[in-house]
Amino acid sequence: MFKYLNSGTITSIPGFKAVGLHCGLKKQKKDLAMIYSDFPAESAGTFTINKVKAAPLLVSQSIVKSDQKIRALIVNSGNANACTGEKGLNDALAIQEYCAAKFGLKNEEVLVSSTGVIGVKLNTEAIKNGIDKISLSDSLPAGHDAAEAIMTTDTKAKSFAMEVELESGKVIIGGICKGSGMIMPNMATMLAFTGTDAEIEKTFLQEIVSEAVAKSFNRISVDGDTSTNDMVILLANGASKIKITKGSDDAEKFKSALIDFYKTLAQSIVKDGEGATKFVNVIVQSAKNEKDADVIAKSIVNSPLVKTALNGADANWGRIISAAGYSGVDFDPAKVTIKIADKEIFKPGYVSHFDEDELKEILLKKDITITFDLGDGDASTEWWTCDFSKEYIEINASYRT
Amino acid sequence: MFKYLNSGTITSIPGFKAVGLHCGLKKQKKDLAMIYSDFPAESAGTFTINKVKAAPLLVSQSIVKSDQKIRALIVNSGNANACTGEKGLNDALAIQEYCAAKFGLKNEEVLVSSTGVIGVKLNTEAIKNGIDKISLSDSLPAGHDAAEAIMTTDTKAKSFAMEVELESGKVIIGGICKGSGMIMPNMATMLAFTGTDAEIEKTFLQEIVSEAVAKSFNRISVDGDTSTNDMVILLANGASKIKITKGSDDAEKFKSALIDFYKTLAQSIVKDGEGATKFVNVIVQSAKNEKDADVIAKSIVNSPLVKTALNGADANWGRIISAAGYSGVDFDPAKVTIKIADKEIFKPGYVSHFDEDELKEILLKKDITITFDLGDGDASTEWWTCDFSKEYIEINASYRT
Repeated sequence: MFKYLNSGTITSIPGFKAVGLHCGLKKQKKDLAMIYSDFPAESAGTFTINKVKAAPLLVSQSIVKSDQKIRALIVNSGNANACTGEKGLNDALAIQEYCAAKFGLKNEEVLVSSTGVIGVKLNTEAIKNGIDKISLSDSLPAGHDAAEAIMTTDTKAKSFAMEVELESGKVIIGGICKGSGMIMPNMATMLAFTGTDAEIEKTFLQEIVSEAVAKSFNRISVDGDTSTNDMVILLANGASKIKITKGSDDAEKFKSALIDFYKTLAQSIVKDGEGATKFVNVIVQSAKNEKDADVIAKSIVNSPLVKTALNGADANWGRIISAAGYSGVDFDPAKVTIKIADKEIFKPGYVSHFDEDELKEILLKKDITITFDLGDGDASTEWWTCDFSKEYIEINASYRT
Repeated sequence: MFKYLNSGTITSIPGFKAVGLHCGLKKQKKDLAMIYSDFPAESAGTFTINKVKAAPLLVSQSIVKSDQKIRALIVNSGNANACTGEKGLNDALAIQEYCAAKFGLKNEEVLVSSTGVIGVKLNTEAIKNGIDKISLSDSLPAGHDAAEAIMTTDTKAKSFAMEVELESGKVIIGGICKGSGMIMPNMATMLAFTGTDAEIEKTFLQEIVSEAVAKSFNRISVDGDTSTNDMVILLANGASKIKITKGSDDAEKFKSALIDFYKTLAQSIVKDGEGATKFVNVIVQSAKNEKDADVIAKSIVNSPLVKTALNGADANWGRIISAAGYSGVDFDPAKVTIKIADKEIFKPGYVSHFDEDELKEILLKKDITITFDLGDGDASTEWWTCDFSKEYIEINASYRT
């Protein structure tokens, strides 16, 4: 029903152009990206629930909430423009206006976003000079440049696209994202700018974006505990002339594809977690209901003790069950099974018996699956995290200076 | 009204004896402690709220809940006896019985406790051999030996005692504690075994212990997110013949002293936090109510981003306000003042202006106070934490193996 495209990115989608360049907020690296749609696009998005919201996020959130169609998105890295008060808001609006003027758009057709250090005034002159230099392209490299320009502590640019086969024809979903501080909640800004050439009515678009985010980015703990700047945006520009209507088979197919796409993006963020050496899949199953499963999974993926044990390839299942225990969910420890890969290391009735050497070998791998089975129902969930390494401390001890 | 005693410990209290020795659960270090009261003592305590509770904790909790008076407490390090099922429970009871028999006590006069790795069967033979070797003493070194014997990743034994001046005479509060994984919640077992020679009625004793724990150990995040074995015990053996009755001036004086005593113990745990290089005092003030202040303080002291920035002596106030922002408390960021020591680095109206060099010098110190002022009420609180260092990862990556 869908397949990922080689070197896919936001510009894999018909009618989308992009650019990524260096404007001077960072010393040498690319720090300014723009995404442009040839056609007015419906928008949907999810935004941080932090009480402290960055200025550009407030501007974009109010536009996405309205009926306004979108033509462009301008985003800088190197400065979050958060906690910058009225000046910050004026700066975000000035960037929006400058960008709109250059491309002959209305201000409100341009979304704005920033990521980087909190509390430093934005160098708007540098960004304006950068906007002057913009030359948009629909080539794949242009999309990858944009992905590069939104990086902060990310070590890899993150670009993806997929082709989705519908009854009424093929559409593309594509996008870029950033965020590498996701190995713990609250770490740093997480951004995802995605698009499609499908034609989708706004209310339904928001509905499927919210659901897809809940099953992907929010399972790497980016919602309940978000930064000041987090946002996920989906632009649907209708270039394919394929209309997706709520309730249709195509709607279900598109939604499934979007959930998979967002999972891929979310997992790419975890895999590039600050200092991460392992990708960890946490499955919680046989729970009474999905909420219980999610609460336990979140507690496990956020436990520094579990994450440091994984870093040391230590089969410390006691920390896993302890994390579940303090999650607040009511369960019977005597019914629990814990598996690492396909090895049962803790069985109902508090039975723990396993080959340490065999398990060590599994834990030394880069990709690890932990299954926590409550033995008490049929709800399940899957979350993603990475280990917690010394490099993480190093990166974060001196991020600002 | 009260003063701390030099080299104070549990044996500073009249009628308390102790011992700490090596029984073989650890390779060489002391791993078995006992506290003994010459007189039957009233007990009060607080216990982990983790769903997964260690066997000895279940045994002790049910005794402390009853009217049973206590004569002794036996505790081992090196093994938590948690997640060990029915065998674990039988082992805890066997240790209790063996200890009671040796000292001519009833089983239910003996509390039991364990700390160490989760999920490994207890070597009861080693402990029984250790009990055979016990020779109790009321000397100060005996109390310090007991403190040493309950250590796990602690680098220092933690012993304190204070003399409390009451209308009706002097009483002593003393005790030992352990816990060094408290630099994040959920880290490791936190134990505090404390006593007094005051005579206090059981219901009131529990009341003041609960209040003192709430204002001390729970402000280093040991309650909402506790390990399987956490407990705080207070034994009042009445040796002083000084009776403290609820509602009296002496009761207030004793309670204030106990709160201060528990804060000292709690802070000693933070100061010895795994890999800690700094002690951090977090004051949240001018909040609408105390609950809001506590929720924000907890969010700040638990933020890995704040803690890594402190490790790097980085004045990253953006992470502090972001942590407050995702705490869930409703506040106006424009009214916030943030101080480090006495320097205001963020003022109402999003004003941030400070001398980086001067601040760096303050942040390089070992003792740091962060004040977060909401400008919106008169409630306040104070929590304690430490920084998050590479050594923390090192300690926890290979704790079990």
